Amino acid sequence: MFKNRLKEIWSDGRPALNGWLSIGNAFTAEIMAAQGYDSVTIDIQHGALDYSSVLPMFQAMKGSGVVPMARVPWCEPGIVMKALDAGAMGIICPMINSAAEAAEFVSYVRYPPHGQRSYGPTRAAIAYGGYGTAANDEILALAMIETQAGMDNLEDIAATPGVDGIYIGPADLTLGTQNGRLAPGFDREESEMIELIQRILSVCSQNGIKACLHCGTPDYAARAIGWGFNLTTVSGDSRLLAGAAAASVKRWRELTAAEGQSEGVTTGGY
Amino acid sequence: MFKNRLKEIWSDGRPALNGWLSIGNAFTAEIMAAQGYDSVTIDIQHGALDYSSVLPMFQAMKGSGVVPMARVPWCEPGIVMKALDAGAMGIICPMINSAAEAAEFVSYVRYPPHGQRSYGPTRAAIAYGGYGTAANDEILALAMIETQAGMDNLEDIAATPGVDGIYIGPADLTLGTQNGRLAPGFDREESEMIELIQRILSVCSQNGIKACLHCGTPDYAARAIGWGFNLTTVSGDSRLLAGAAAASVKRWRELTAAEGQSEGVTTGGY
Amino acid sequence: MFKNRLKEIWSDGRPALNGWLSIGNAFTAEIMAAQGYDSVTIDIQHGALDYSSVLPMFQAMKGSGVVPMARVPWCEPGIVMKALDAGAMGIICPMINSAAEAAEFVSYVRYPPHGQRSYGPTRAAIAYGGYGTAANDEILALAMIETQAGMDNLEDIAATPGVDGIYIGPADLTLGTQNGRLAPGFDREESEMIELIQRILSVCSQNGIKACLHCGTPDYAARAIGWGFNLTTVSGDSRLLAGAAAASVKRWRELTAAEGQSEGVTTGGY
Amino acid sequence: MFKNRLKEIWSDGRPALNGWLSIGNAFTAEIMAAQGYDSVTIDIQHGALDYSSVLPMFQAMKGSGVVPMARVPWCEPGIVMKALDAGAMGIICPMINSAAEAAEFVSYVRYPPHGQRSYGPTRAAIAYGGYGTAANDEILALAMIETQAGMDNLEDIAATPGVDGIYIGPADLTLGTQNGRLAPGFDREESEMIELIQRILSVCSQNGIKACLHCGTPDYAARAIGWGFNLTTVSGDSRLLAGAAAASVKRWRELTAAEGQSEGVTTGGY
Amino acid sequence: MFKNRLKEIWSDGRPALNGWLSIGNAFTAEIMAAQGYDSVTIDIQHGALDYSSVLPMFQAMKGSGVVPMARVPWCEPGIVMKALDAGAMGIICPMINSAAEAAEFVSYVRYPPHGQRSYGPTRAAIAYGGYGTAANDEILALAMIETQAGMDNLEDIAATPGVDGIYIGPADLTLGTQNGRLAPGFDREESEMIELIQRILSVCSQNGIKACLHCGTPDYAARAIGWGFNLTTVSGDSRLLAGAAAASVKRWRELTAAEGQSEGVTTGGY
Amino acid sequence: MFKNRLKEIWSDGRPALNGWLSIGNAFTAEIMAAQGYDSVTIDIQHGALDYSSVLPMFQAMKGSGVVPMARVPWCEPGIVMKALDAGAMGIICPMINSAAEAAEFVSYVRYPPHGQRSYGPTRAAIAYGGYGTAANDEILALAMIETQAGMDNLEDIAATPGVDGIYIGPADLTLGTQNGRLAPGFDREESEMIELIQRILSVCSQNGIKACLHCGTPDYAARAIGWGFNLTTVSGDSRLLAGAAAASVKRWRELTAAEGQSEGVTTGGY
Repeated sequence: MFKNRLKEIWSDGRPALNGWLSIGNAFTAEIMAAQGYDSVTIDIQHGALDYSSVLPMFQAMKGSGVVPMARVPWCEPGIVMKALDAGAMGIICPMINSAAEAAEFVSYVRYPPHGQRSYGPTRAAIAYGGYGTAANDEILALAMIETQAGMDNLEDIAATPGVDGIYIGPADLTLGTQNGRLAPGFDREESEMIELIQRILSVCSQNGIKACLHCGTPDYAARAIGWGFNLTTVSGDSRLLAGAAAASVKRWRELTAAEGQSEGVTTGGY
Repeated sequence: MFKNRLKEIWSDGRPALNGWLSIGNAFTAEIMAAQGYDSVTIDIQHGALDYSSVLPMFQAMKGSGVVPMARVPWCEPGIVMKALDAGAMGIICPMINSAAEAAEFVSYVRYPPHGQRSYGPTRAAIAYGGYGTAANDEILALAMIETQAGMDNLEDIAATPGVDGIYIGPADLTLGTQNGRLAPGFDREESEMIELIQRILSVCSQNGIKACLHCGTPDYAARAIGWGFNLTTVSGDSRLLAGAAAASVKRWRELTAAEGQSEGVTTGGY
Repeated sequence: MFKNRLKEIWSDGRPALNGWLSIGNAFTAEIMAAQGYDSVTIDIQHGALDYSSVLPMFQAMKGSGVVPMARVPWCEPGIVMKALDAGAMGIICPMINSAAEAAEFVSYVRYPPHGQRSYGPTRAAIAYGGYGTAANDEILALAMIETQAGMDNLEDIAATPGVDGIYIGPADLTLGTQNGRLAPGFDREESEMIELIQRILSVCSQNGIKACLHCGTPDYAARAIGWGFNLTTVSGDSRLLAGAAAASVKRWRELTAAEGQSEGVTTGGY
Repeated sequence: MFKNRLKEIWSDGRPALNGWLSIGNAFTAEIMAAQGYDSVTIDIQHGALDYSSVLPMFQAMKGSGVVPMARVPWCEPGIVMKALDAGAMGIICPMINSAAEAAEFVSYVRYPPHGQRSYGPTRAAIAYGGYGTAANDEILALAMIETQAGMDNLEDIAATPGVDGIYIGPADLTLGTQNGRLAPGFDREESEMIELIQRILSVCSQNGIKACLHCGTPDYAARAIGWGFNLTTVSGDSRLLAGAAAASVKRWRELTAAEGQSEGVTTGGY
Repeated sequence: MFKNRLKEIWSDGRPALNGWLSIGNAFTAEIMAAQGYDSVTIDIQHGALDYSSVLPMFQAMKGSGVVPMARVPWCEPGIVMKALDAGAMGIICPMINSAAEAAEFVSYVRYPPHGQRSYGPTRAAIAYGGYGTAANDEILALAMIETQAGMDNLEDIAATPGVDGIYIGPADLTLGTQNGRLAPGFDREESEMIELIQRILSVCSQNGIKACLHCGTPDYAARAIGWGFNLTTVSGDSRLLAGAAAASVKRWRELTAAEGQSEGVTTGGY
Repeated sequence: MFKNRLKEIWSDGRPALNGWLSIGNAFTAEIMAAQGYDSVTIDIQHGALDYSSVLPMFQAMKGSGVVPMARVPWCEPGIVMKALDAGAMGIICPMINSAAEAAEFVSYVRYPPHGQRSYGPTRAAIAYGGYGTAANDEILALAMIETQAGMDNLEDIAATPGVDGIYIGPADLTLGTQNGRLAPGFDREESEMIELIQRILSVCSQNGIKACLHCGTPDYAARAIGWGFNLTTVSGDSRLLAGAAAASVKRWRELTAAEGQSEGVTTGGY
């Protein structure tokens, strides 16, 4: 039967760890899905990929047991529904600025009479037993709040029926609320940003929905779990790869330079 | 003009650091090429990719200035020549067991009268100015020795005209020479394996060709550079990604478990 | 010259048989196009595919003579126009709930002054002689009615200039009008659903436009043709494949089990 | 742990049902893998696909529990090893005409000291726990006998260490032994062909290896199981799809023609 | 550092030559980028391609130094932002009919506080040093005016803060303003069309923004440069290929027919 | 019925014009196939493509009526047979140096008893009516002679049963016979090269097989037709595109520079 394991983790009172995919490739998806995340989200918004990569990536993740999710580029019904038909068990939707937008988003995720999702779970019905009847209950709708307008309407958004949680992207939340005063980035330490983040957490808690935070490091994520967040994303495939490779190159250059032998390539470009 | 930067590094008396691509994706190739390697090799043999990925990966690497190379699946003329036409500035060829096989390999890499490479550098001529006349001089032919037969014929292989270097894959060299006594893997510490590896290095040096070693860590690679190796590969994209993700998951689980809240998914599968 | 054969069939007073593609693959498209359908529609909405598959699929269908059509994911100008530029001779558009939406849809399908389609039939002009001048006349705009609102506005939608027909998807029409009382599916037998379907047929007929029905079996489709439908779709590639494979497996298991020898795999999954 | 379920089925004394993939698509692979076959084989030889499709197809099959196998185009080490690294648990190799060729084939499938397979199970090690140590034991090497020379050397081929079974393709066996007297095809009824097929079965049995037969229908396959075959393939994705679609079209045309309304498209082409 | 070379050319008082890509292929992109254009634009609107081709095409263009741009299918935030994240240094947006639409378009191109672009330049940050801080300054927003409404609001559109220029597509401008009196096409010679084109040029000049014209031939483009246009596109990949091939075939047929030997194939089709 | 139109052209005593595809893209294939060539050949050897592009390219060419052919990378059975199964009506095989190699090549192209082609025309049987019985008669086997050894064995190669013609690539023939004295290239004017070319033509004529020449321009091709060649290739997709684009850029730069305004980008790279 079609069950969303994130819901089970949460009903057990445990937090969840989400992986993040920005590389449009089924093999990297399979590698990431094998590392022990609870869920893994394909970022169709900022990832270097589109729907044509989503399908094989979900397929490659299926053997692992992780919960497959997708962040869509925008609150547009076409891509929300296509990601669901491809097998997403949760949708993270950017730029929800009002209760009306939240309701619109939810309506794309649920079949009538709870929404206006069109019926045709072509791959999902092959991949999951009993999909049709369970989909409305098992699939998560996570709204992103990224602007001052979103913050102003936070309570209404969180109270919108069918919204299962709020997902915070600290880079955009910073850009969208601080009027250019702070540079974008994860793992905010500024008190005004932590206050915003905790206010969202608190409103989620009051409304009985989940609070989710995008983080850059396990250490910050663990702090967020300590605050009460229900799910944290930690880094993502392209950052993990670039970071590990850069560290490896740096170490080699240091060790071999100690012998006076080497210096790096000067990367060209624009 | 079409110049192979590895040759320049070596003529400066410096060692080179090679990156390794097993993921068939142009974005991971671009990420890896931007991390400061001197050369980056696409592994068509064991990588999760084939020629159809090689072309866009070489294209994605071009802006970075790294030297693009390819390891072919086997000493077959079709794929050697296609990798060259796609823009490889060096070919690493597995399973060279005799001088005859080495000569055959070299013949696929060089245009007549120095070989039998067929003329038609479709992408290479677009990508590199003056390709046709410089190709025979600039492109590297690196032979892999992986079996007892290869070790027995080491001197003859190293002396084969046109062989620019020997590339050692310690996993296969172990499997191919130790009759099942040792498990495959990189960064060998057994004295018999270090002896074999240093013997190859020594014969390369005597024949004026380059010695190259596939390593798992920068630290082992630096030791090999200290021994006199001219090029070391350190890990590769899929291992770096899996390692970094696994470490991130482990850290998060430890930190959050300290708060008694979480345990990981049990990965399913066969 | 660029001619839409569906129009010829209809002007001969004959009904048409439409095939349906949910698999994103040019070879399955070519196989389906060779089986004798009058038209074959690529389902960009619920099919496991997107635009990147549409282009090679239309190319693969061209040799067969079938009329290529596409169902778009939503009434969005970007994908409607891209499907047309790729060679679609008809567009089926979901979720048309009012005359305004119908007019909007039609405007995406026709060049000015009859609409706002942007000019640039990149592949269509290569594929079809005389495309530019004939496109407005030959391309079909088929609107889907799938909600109670759509039913309420049925007459206005059918009377919208440029709408060539109504396409009924019984699964969504059921979900959209029955408030959860009936499960989605094709080949409805409930009197209330047959009544809705026949009411649409009747309004189409009164407005001189075509009535099209998505069916699960040839037998139901033939009944619909008997009622007066002008085009029926019967099943589709993924269902036909799954059904034929399942029947083959079932037959083999029965025959070999009769000899007491075998039982099937237990499919794993979530 | 990495286990080949076909071996378990056979050690239970049961026959196995194999599915066949000629369409280069991960969704059709996932559909086929969900229908209850014991194993599913990707046909790299005659399928409309190559390695670039094999990887995502194996990934898409993983969640189902079926045993993934591949038929390679020819007895060439490059593609045999790449199919294995991608996750094949069995290789079917065409055109084995002598014990020497059988031994060559086996050597590509096994790591030293039992063969010369090169080490680097890039995706297999991600997909299967404990792959490296179990691979030599769990992976099947199935040789095809398709010529008179192959028949003449049948006993020697069957006795070659490491050959796990003989796979019969009746079309090529007919072409290769009957000197043009009989047309190619499956499900042979001619006594001379049945005799050849049963002779192979008998020699397999004497050598303690498995006998496998490619069939067109479940009924013929069940007969073969009755003769003692250990595995039968029944039809394949492209044939199942074409057959089901053609039957659906035919039924619709008959039913609607009965009402005097319709005739089919005349397929164009060369 | 991330610099837009078109801005440098313009600040030098020179005009720019833009290439145009309608073929969804990284090799044709690389070929085109090597021919000496100042910028090369991928046409996501009418090109036979979508986002999945855009990424490798931008990667393939990077080594050349040309400025990569994209025309989007419609003024939709999803695709505008994805094209930017993939590395576009300029966006050409069709169908801008009012200042409000122009402002909406600009908002998708700029990060807050100057717009609402979401932060996550996945590939752009890898490809360009210092991307994040320079993006708002370096990326061009070019609005297309293609309708009578657009012409009516020309001054307001040109005065919209953040609009860097107007891009004219003469085919759509003709269709959109002439009510079917003139056929679509480039290189207009009708006085009413030249008047419209020059009026746009004049308003651009008054507003200190750039005027860009899509042309069919270098000769017409040079005339436009003479009028004061800042950038002209001349033809595009698919037209250049078709034209060159057709001319080659025609020449061969003429030369060989002169010897009475040959006539061409009659192309089939619908 | 499956007929090879090149054979009809030749039996009418007319020469044929062949197009050439080096870009791995179905849209460029469709464009080229629409320009009036008699046949169009996909260059799997030096083209920037492999089998994964061949299938959709043949599909895209089918509607045009041109004869689809392929040049394979090397005389290897795997790719020869896969190209045929994908629909090639002719195979051009490089590097045939002896009658034995010619016979080997022919054997891969013909079904038993005339060869050893394996049976399974997966796409060809869908694409062409009556393929199985006609294939041996209709499919062309064209051998390339590119070395001194090939020239030495010319008569024997031309007399090998089943060889339908010799295809000359002047670049490789020059490299392979002139020992580095002459640079590779088409449209040779050196008397020694013309002599070689005409000697091949003469031997073809004596053996009743076809002579085919790869040319750079229609004018040289017409000369070759005048000499008696049966088929000429003239240029190819990537060269036609690059040439047309370069000419367009050059013309624009000249025209605009005349007004003192512009100079080109300096292409970067290695």
